[in-house]
Amino acid sequence: MIVLGLDPGYAIVGYGAIDTNKGKHKLLCYGAITTPAGMEMSRRLLEISRDMRTLLDTVKPDMVAVEELFFNNNITTGIQVAQARGVILAACAERGLTPVAYTPSQVKQAVVGYGKAEKKQVMEMTRMMLSLKAVPKPDDAADALAIALCHAHTAGSSMPTK
Amino acid sequence: MIVLGLDPGYAIVGYGAIDTNKGKHKLLCYGAITTPAGMEMSRRLLEISRDMRTLLDTVKPDMVAVEELFFNNNITTGIQVAQARGVILAACAERGLTPVAYTPSQVKQAVVGYGKAEKKQVMEMTRMMLSLKAVPKPDDAADALAIALCHAHTAGSSMPTK
Repeated sequence: MIVLGLDPGYAIVGYGAIDTNKGKHKLLCYGAITTPAGMEMSRRLLEISRDMRTLLDTVKPDMVAVEELFFNNNITTGIQVAQARGVILAACAERGLTPVAYTPSQVKQAVVGYGKAEKKQVMEMTRMMLSLKAVPKPDDAADALAIALCHAHTAGSSMPTK
Repeated sequence: MIVLGLDPGYAIVGYGAIDTNKGKHKLLCYGAITTPAGMEMSRRLLEISRDMRTLLDTVKPDMVAVEELFFNNNITTGIQVAQARGVILAACAERGLTPVAYTPSQVKQAVVGYGKAEKKQVMEMTRMMLSLKAVPKPDDAADALAIALCHAHTAGSSMPTK
């Protein structure tokens, strides 16, 4: 089963796809959809929408796991990330996929076994679980792979197969 | 010039279109795009995206004016409204339109002449400016018409004609 993990953003959307089968995980691809800082916001959102459709048509995931949003410091940035997340969710629905959301602490718990793990630990465990030589770059792609692994672990064998 | 005003939401997107020419405004249409409460969120966002495209293809606006988002009480609702707003902005960009944003106080200032006007005053002025017998329903549609009028007044004759 192919799980696509997504780390939403308006400047960078991290993505990472794994093939998971009976507790074994194989890296398929990872990377980032980016939009230039100088571009008008509605145009950036359209770019994300189009690139998401291409990504979904290329990866053909069975499931999509996406990070849950939390607002801490900057409300303006939070609104913009939420706008991008809306476009991402709609693109998934358009391809018949129902994204599942995980909080950062759920991801940490699933990947490291401790909900308050350091970001570095999550990245190192992600690297090990996928038998990679180095932690994937950019960080957003590594985060996306951790989200995909979280879904594979959390849902386990009871994942819906669609 | 046709101005489409939009009041973003995930349950209700209010819309209202006016034809504005040399300070005179004519109502074209108003209404609301709605999604059912029980529907999964990514699916609701897809519905909004599709209905927005249909609306834009029907109204064929020259300009789109949309309400600026502010978070006050409920952050979770705010995130969901922002997600819907993202889908709305992307749909506008897909049709070659660059939406302009106005804050609630800008709308009040433009329509009533006082930035802290009551909601009721804004609705009554909207009704009068468009020579309507009653305030349009639902409220989201009346808000959207006020946003369209705000754009017509604020931009005046210097509006870009695209």
